[in-house]
Amino acid sequence: MKYPNVKGTRDFAPDILAKRKYILNIIESVFKKYGFLALETPALEQLDTLTGKYGDEGDKLLFKVLNSGDFASKVDDNIWSSKQSENIAKFISEKGLRYDLTVPLARFVATNRNDITFPFKRYQMQPVWRADRPQRGRYREFWQCDADILGSNTLINEAEILTIAVEIFKKLNIPIQISLNNRKILEAIAEKLGISEKFNLFTVLIDKLDKINFVDLSKDFENIGLSKDKIAELSKILSTQYFNKESINIILESLNNNANAQKGCDELLEILSFISLIEKFDANIKIDLSLARGLDYYTGCIIEIKCSTAKMGSIAGGGRYDNLTGVFGLPGVSGIGISFGIDRIYDIMEEMQLFNDVKTTDTKIVLCQFDKKGQLYNFKIAAMLRENGISCEVYPDLKKINKQLEYAEKKGIEYVIISGEEEINSQILSVKNLKSRIQEKIDVKNIISYFK
Amino acid sequence: MKYPNVKGTRDFAPDILAKRKYILNIIESVFKKYGFLALETPALEQLDTLTGKYGDEGDKLLFKVLNSGDFASKVDDNIWSSKQSENIAKFISEKGLRYDLTVPLARFVATNRNDITFPFKRYQMQPVWRADRPQRGRYREFWQCDADILGSNTLINEAEILTIAVEIFKKLNIPIQISLNNRKILEAIAEKLGISEKFNLFTVLIDKLDKINFVDLSKDFENIGLSKDKIAELSKILSTQYFNKESINIILESLNNNANAQKGCDELLEILSFISLIEKFDANIKIDLSLARGLDYYTGCIIEIKCSTAKMGSIAGGGRYDNLTGVFGLPGVSGIGISFGIDRIYDIMEEMQLFNDVKTTDTKIVLCQFDKKGQLYNFKIAAMLRENGISCEVYPDLKKINKQLEYAEKKGIEYVIISGEEEINSQILSVKNLKSRIQEKIDVKNIISYFK
Repeated sequence: MKYPNVKGTRDFAPDILAKRKYILNIIESVFKKYGFLALETPALEQLDTLTGKYGDEGDKLLFKVLNSGDFASKVDDNIWSSKQSENIAKFISEKGLRYDLTVPLARFVATNRNDITFPFKRYQMQPVWRADRPQRGRYREFWQCDADILGSNTLINEAEILTIAVEIFKKLNIPIQISLNNRKILEAIAEKLGISEKFNLFTVLIDKLDKINFVDLSKDFENIGLSKDKIAELSKILSTQYFNKESINIILESLNNNANAQKGCDELLEILSFISLIEKFDANIKIDLSLARGLDYYTGCIIEIKCSTAKMGSIAGGGRYDNLTGVFGLPGVSGIGISFGIDRIYDIMEEMQLFNDVKTTDTKIVLCQFDKKGQLYNFKIAAMLRENGISCEVYPDLKKINKQLEYAEKKGIEYVIISGEEEINSQILSVKNLKSRIQEKIDVKNIISYFK
Repeated sequence: MKYPNVKGTRDFAPDILAKRKYILNIIESVFKKYGFLALETPALEQLDTLTGKYGDEGDKLLFKVLNSGDFASKVDDNIWSSKQSENIAKFISEKGLRYDLTVPLARFVATNRNDITFPFKRYQMQPVWRADRPQRGRYREFWQCDADILGSNTLINEAEILTIAVEIFKKLNIPIQISLNNRKILEAIAEKLGISEKFNLFTVLIDKLDKINFVDLSKDFENIGLSKDKIAELSKILSTQYFNKESINIILESLNNNANAQKGCDELLEILSFISLIEKFDANIKIDLSLARGLDYYTGCIIEIKCSTAKMGSIAGGGRYDNLTGVFGLPGVSGIGISFGIDRIYDIMEEMQLFNDVKTTDTKIVLCQFDKKGQLYNFKIAAMLRENGISCEVYPDLKKINKQLEYAEKKGIEYVIISGEEEINSQILSVKNLKSRIQEKIDVKNIISYFK
């Protein structure tokens, strides 16, 4: 009899969950320190809300929920007998599972525009679902941790988002490399190459350069209208590494001072000037023109963060979008957001052994006993300890003392109190530290101060 | 253009979510203090895992997820053309949404039995989904907060579960009434009435007595084989209120000292003897023989908790089950659990105005400015404040000062710092408390200590 998990989903057992919560708590505490407010949206959304927002590929990855009741009776006989799944799905499924946290944010903001104080700084940390092929580091249910600022187009927001990322990774002890780019510079490159009309396809291809090299993608670049010469030119522009303010002039020159390029470079410079005010900004930033990020909605600065010591894709990313809520009837709200990938962060921290201080249990003491009388006594002592905020457990069964100590040790609990006839009569507790193996006799009157 | 939420689901805007988190944090902190470990399971489960566990009614309320890809092609033509939804669903849907947290717990424990340290004390706080008809206080997506102890049948666990509930509701400031019963006593009643074979139907009917009175249910009681006389007898047994240990003898007598009744009463007495050891046990417990709880899997003590000052159904409930994991191939693991209904708890606390101290934002200060120079200065001050753990925001846009103050006030933020030419040059910050309207000049060197 096997009851496996759904493919691509995971149980988080207590030891794993404790580490995940350690990451989530640090991210949340920093979000809050920067004034972001928590939002949660439902796992279920109308398919009308979700479809058409993530491209054709994304639409295919949506998990659709079957309508309740007699769903088939509501489908026209001709359509039904065609057995065309894609078409029939529209009639038998109205709801889907959340695919990301950005579209629900846009829906929420558009719907509640009159109640929201703008600029709206919200964070959201919830699971999302994608019917993708599971593989190492890719799940069908995974968590996103997003922070977004909507309703302000000033570049201080970009700087703040970067500062937040730096603080979070510093607290997690993960060394990072930040890559910055600006969609306007990519637009300028597309203009120069004469393929502005294919801009979205162009960015999707550039986004792939992370995993596939230029030579292997040249066929695809040709397909969107680039000659071999232009591909060589593109390769040269993208491959140059730019590390500082001065190099921005080089970018501008190579793009003939194109207006879009000028705007994009000015924005990068302004962001860097904000950052330079922070003394303890503990991260390298490089301008990387080959950074595109696959999502259509980005319009300005784009950000990608990798761990500088691990072979792993990006662990956080985001950017500026100028019209996220437009599709829900609220145009003209510029925003910027960042998303942290906690599954990858978890893997890196496990690899770097950064979870050594994370404890699975908060319990400090297991109270053990020889008999029923001892257990009743322990129940009373435990109530007193808990009333004083000390986390403890009474071993619930009357098993051999060794079995009880083994329980404490397996759970990683430091102390045991062993209550027998003598301890009860004398009101002197027998306390043992399982690590140091030191055993002490403590008057029950002093037990609270002993553990505090 | 309308993009409504899925019926029966809700967005939790920051002000609501802050209050929900306040409840969840209190519940979680108490769970941890009693030694429970956190577990999370996926939203998606195999339908094989879910179906047949919640009765026919429950099976109908499962949200089923449509298989990806060309689902129709995998259905036999004859079955497809029958258009029988219930039958076809089996072929086009393999996955469903979590219906509660108990079945996933049982699956997890059965699957991971070799890695788990028993007794396994776990808590789980996650949303569940039911395709029920939404109504006041009933949602299609709602949260459950469960704590369970598996692998120990000692009655100290029942006492601990009750103590946990009392501590949680005390911390939430909700006055409660606890009802206790034991399924074994209900079995004894069924034996006495000669309907042991209809025991599950019998408990389902008793469970309904909470909402429907005896007279209106008499037809249903007749249907499971009770004569009018026996219904009258049942009514008399159930309607008597039992408040203390002495009354347990009355129960026993009325059931002719039936063996099951004896066992159930002994268990109740032992639980009460544990509870009596706790000096500050701040709640009334009554023995209520009409308490049944609709779920089939309970076998021993059952618990229900209501707010004693609000007209509302139960806000927490649970009980002892002897074979939860058996259906997943692991028999003989006795357990006890309790579940807190945070949606109802929320409604009661809102009604009783118990959220007065809950703040939506952690931000202490909004830094305001007149111009770009002021904003750059504020960005630097904000970095210093945050480095010292003080939550603050720089107002990101260069709008009129009134607009900036309005933002702080709307978000309920207490202080503003207004940075102009003079403040920058003198390095003396202008700090205003928006509540008291007091404005002070604080040297930038002292600003950290001022706010700490």
